[in-house]
Amino acid sequence: MMDQIQATIITIGDELLIGQVIDTNSAFIAQKLNNIGVHVHQRIAVGDDKKSITEALNTAIDKNQIIIITGGLGPTADDITKPLLNEYFGGKMIVDQPTLDHITYIFEQIHKRPMIERNRKQAEVPDVCEVLFNQTGTAPGMLFIKNNTLVFSLPGVPHEMQWLTTEKVIPIIKERYKLGVIAHRTLLTAGVGESFLAESIIDFETSLPATIKLAYLPSYGMVRLRLTGNGTNEIDLNNQLDQFFDQLKDEVKDYLVTDKDEPIEVVVGRLLKDQNHTVATAESCTGGYIGHLLSKHAGSSAFFTGSVVSYDNRIKTEFLDVPTNILQTVGAVSKEAVEQMAIAIRSKMNTDYGISVSGIMGPSGQTDEKPLGMVWIGVSNKEKVYSKVFYLRFDRQKNIEVTANQAINLLRLLIINKI
Amino acid sequence: MMDQIQATIITIGDELLIGQVIDTNSAFIAQKLNNIGVHVHQRIAVGDDKKSITEALNTAIDKNQIIIITGGLGPTADDITKPLLNEYFGGKMIVDQPTLDHITYIFEQIHKRPMIERNRKQAEVPDVCEVLFNQTGTAPGMLFIKNNTLVFSLPGVPHEMQWLTTEKVIPIIKERYKLGVIAHRTLLTAGVGESFLAESIIDFETSLPATIKLAYLPSYGMVRLRLTGNGTNEIDLNNQLDQFFDQLKDEVKDYLVTDKDEPIEVVVGRLLKDQNHTVATAESCTGGYIGHLLSKHAGSSAFFTGSVVSYDNRIKTEFLDVPTNILQTVGAVSKEAVEQMAIAIRSKMNTDYGISVSGIMGPSGQTDEKPLGMVWIGVSNKEKVYSKVFYLRFDRQKNIEVTANQAINLLRLLIINKI
Repeated sequence: MMDQIQATIITIGDELLIGQVIDTNSAFIAQKLNNIGVHVHQRIAVGDDKKSITEALNTAIDKNQIIIITGGLGPTADDITKPLLNEYFGGKMIVDQPTLDHITYIFEQIHKRPMIERNRKQAEVPDVCEVLFNQTGTAPGMLFIKNNTLVFSLPGVPHEMQWLTTEKVIPIIKERYKLGVIAHRTLLTAGVGESFLAESIIDFETSLPATIKLAYLPSYGMVRLRLTGNGTNEIDLNNQLDQFFDQLKDEVKDYLVTDKDEPIEVVVGRLLKDQNHTVATAESCTGGYIGHLLSKHAGSSAFFTGSVVSYDNRIKTEFLDVPTNILQTVGAVSKEAVEQMAIAIRSKMNTDYGISVSGIMGPSGQTDEKPLGMVWIGVSNKEKVYSKVFYLRFDRQKNIEVTANQAINLLRLLIINKI
Repeated sequence: MMDQIQATIITIGDELLIGQVIDTNSAFIAQKLNNIGVHVHQRIAVGDDKKSITEALNTAIDKNQIIIITGGLGPTADDITKPLLNEYFGGKMIVDQPTLDHITYIFEQIHKRPMIERNRKQAEVPDVCEVLFNQTGTAPGMLFIKNNTLVFSLPGVPHEMQWLTTEKVIPIIKERYKLGVIAHRTLLTAGVGESFLAESIIDFETSLPATIKLAYLPSYGMVRLRLTGNGTNEIDLNNQLDQFFDQLKDEVKDYLVTDKDEPIEVVVGRLLKDQNHTVATAESCTGGYIGHLLSKHAGSSAFFTGSVVSYDNRIKTEFLDVPTNILQTVGAVSKEAVEQMAIAIRSKMNTDYGISVSGIMGPSGQTDEKPLGMVWIGVSNKEKVYSKVFYLRFDRQKNIEVTANQAINLLRLLIINKI
């Protein structure tokens, strides 16, 4: 007999409600729960106050088999989760010796500074919880059980929360419940709008069984499509999902970038690695962001050689040989400039491919001929250089992100001989 | 008579519950609401299903004067918010002519492709709502009113949601309610741990009145402190808050980076602009991320000249004159290498300051002498070069972010003559 297990994630912190920080923790937890077939029913963010936290707990505890709480476990006075849970579950505070030993070790051996009372307090836990030893920090995780609902409390520091989720929370849930199966298939398309895509696969979408859902997710000027299936048997579900996914891939084959849930720079990194080829970037308006994307994943030194960021036009001339007369006539945001940049960076860094960008990211810098969001992108290999102009209509930050993604997509098209 | 107005933000989308995307929309909305004195009581994320959305609405509608819903208004079949709200508020669908004209304009004049039925449908709205005309996209915003609660529905596309929030939602709320006042003061410290900081200002924290709260927010290896005050009179509240904030700034003066809520690269950008000085970066392990931070804010061309990303050691030698014997003996992650890089980038790009980094970001690449997370950072000006080693213990992505922030902080210390 299989249980359909439902979870709510509660994140605690005033900073979440005043918009000062973005909540990445609950996305991480949601993903991990989903992978093992737990249905995340709600995510709730509440402030550092007793009433709101208690209310959220009360609402969630009846409807869910699993509640995961993050935040409010630090050493400072705004961290009220632990005493609150102690009271909620009717316990009293005791020292957890393994945690105290660990905190002592961290201060003596790693920080090499004296431990203060405030730190020692972090080793205190309610006697009604199971302690989840936290190898990665000073605040332990805790597990409370009430009416068969598992209530986990984890620190809000992302790498500690991640370690505890992966090493403690998930294994405990898997041991306790016989879980249903949820599976996803995700693909990425480029060069087609969401509405047109939807129109072109309307028959496919209508043909899907009730247990499989299709979702459209915009992604830096591209569109991601995701199939989600629910089932009881893992093999059956995966077979069924693969069948519909193959059909979907065929429907969108003209726009397909990847049939995995991965960012485009990983796709391009793999294409380059497979061919033993390298790339360098010459960036103006993106300021190094393309180099960052290409190098942010492990193993990128196999294909990413380096960049020249020529933010100042002087650097375009001195480092990338863009003639001053180009800069003075057609300007830095031009076909001529990016093509020269793409050729020069490839030749100077002695790579197989080059990428270049120059544009007006906003909020100012536009002229009558060159509107905000206008960006030229160039890509080059030994045989040729190709360039294309884009007109973006986002804010500065988003324009930078979309430019970088489109530049990497153009390189992909060059690598696979589509341009 | 002043109202204490409470709001709940509901974000809709399966992608939020399976952790595929991170919810940045609700942080934006929370910030805007907070600025005008609306207390955000909860943020809830639910999936694209009728039951969950209705449940969330039912729970929120009794407790809040304002509900803001984002998502589920797109042109595809997984976008169910509009018909659901139509049913919930008992309306029938009618065409909104200004929206239809706008969609027609977008397709004819901007996309230059035929409009399809699916797009035309986006102009349909429930006849029981006030339409919030969306100048930035095809899905209009909507305002429903029930039992004096304002229920706003906005598209999930960030720049559209942002425009509608700023231009429509906030003015409507301000017109309707006489609002309480919430104000914040935020400062950033560097070079001190959260526990030690808390210990050193314990008397200050204890002395705070009940209407003012202190929060600790970790920020890329630094700590942000925030005072939040609630009141009825804006001038009184600000005066009181300024007084405590001055006291707090004095308490942490040895570690104070900025007394504004701004990232460190903005602080350094301002220091450089004030002196009419420029900076260039020589990056290895950060792959261009420092250049990205320095250039992501408007106006950065006044001080950011450019970068050489020398991901491959060959580029360190060819572009930054790091002698091959340094690379072969002490290696690229060394005091010698980063000091040469910091000197070379400054001289070659002819700037006032140089920044350089070289390290092991993980998950592999470590040796017996050089552990994962070891990173050398160098900064230079005309008179000197300074370097420092850091040992980070995060994952690759976080190590890159912390390295970039610490590098920019070292530059700050050099500019203000603290190193």
